[in-house]
Amino acid sequence: MTQPRRGRPPAQDSADTRDRIIEAATELFATKGFHGTGVAEIGTRADVQRGALYYHIKSKEDLLWGILRDYTNVLLAEAEAVSATDDDPTTKLHNLIRSHVTLIVKYQREVGIQIKDSGALTGGSAAQLQELRDRVQQQWQQVLDDGCATGDFRTNDHVITNSLLGLVNMVWFWYRPGGSSTPTEIAHMIAAMVFDGITTRN
Amino acid sequence: MTQPRRGRPPAQDSADTRDRIIEAATELFATKGFHGTGVAEIGTRADVQRGALYYHIKSKEDLLWGILRDYTNVLLAEAEAVSATDDDPTTKLHNLIRSHVTLIVKYQREVGIQIKDSGALTGGSAAQLQELRDRVQQQWQQVLDDGCATGDFRTNDHVITNSLLGLVNMVWFWYRPGGSSTPTEIAHMIAAMVFDGITTRN
Repeated sequence: MTQPRRGRPPAQDSADTRDRIIEAATELFATKGFHGTGVAEIGTRADVQRGALYYHIKSKEDLLWGILRDYTNVLLAEAEAVSATDDDPTTKLHNLIRSHVTLIVKYQREVGIQIKDSGALTGGSAAQLQELRDRVQQQWQQVLDDGCATGDFRTNDHVITNSLLGLVNMVWFWYRPGGSSTPTEIAHMIAAMVFDGITTRN
Repeated sequence: MTQPRRGRPPAQDSADTRDRIIEAATELFATKGFHGTGVAEIGTRADVQRGALYYHIKSKEDLLWGILRDYTNVLLAEAEAVSATDDDPTTKLHNLIRSHVTLIVKYQREVGIQIKDSGALTGGSAAQLQELRDRVQQQWQQVLDDGCATGDFRTNDHVITNSLLGLVNMVWFWYRPGGSSTPTEIAHMIAAMVFDGITTRN
């Protein structure tokens, strides 16, 4: 093994440190908000000295960008995987809802940061995040478009696509771990409402 | 007319000043976030001197509480008015959706502050806001309960009540003034999905 250069931590330590910083920033942004969190505080929580901190990150905004980018990439990858199957549009939409609800519960901190503080991103990172989010939305839109083309769905209006994504995103707002319904049950009830509505006349 | 006491502005001026402060705080909280807004900045925007500012408000948190309380009271009053009619549950739920979407568009700044920064409230005001929000939700729950009792709806699960409120609240997230659909059209499309679902098999 080569000796690490002076002043430069070995790659594995460096990755561990960066993970600790991201974990600390995620926890602090989620509980105190982006603006309410200081860089020094992130360093303290991650147990990283201030000088070393800036070796690993460019800025607080860069951390925010990294957290939201990684989360949105997970959403996008799952949406693309669902979309790429040979399932019919109804099954795909059901799977999109289930996958999204499950991820929102798993990434509850990141979703909160997204909803509350994505406006703190500026310039290129704001545009790139918006592009990633648009690509997620396009997967949902495509499934709705396909469902209209096959005659399964009676609408593919953007209002409905936005509403569906809003609906599943807001699970973040009211979901409590240990509540009376599991994420799978929640996804199933939401899907039943989306497909068949709540009236008995259907 | 009696002469105002020294150091105390006349009642009308005082109400105007308080309105200006609330307007300035609403605008700043909505655009820069609660934590990103300084009290001095609110004073400057409202054109009120720092000393006079604290005559009108107790604290920045007190302003946040006042803004969210007033908005939630408007929501509650409308929900109670809809609920108090003799309409059937389907009509009531349709009216709740329309009223809520209309108010969310009208109070877009307040909804944003609610979603992003209501967590900054502490103690009694946090509890009181939660109580007001619970009362709004109870109106929706009551209409769902009634609709199940009459056999019009097939579910009154809390997941559905939460989802409906989440769905309409998230109109805040994607609604753009001048977009392709008016608030009334948006409410109508959401109601159609909620009642009858999006599949053609119904």
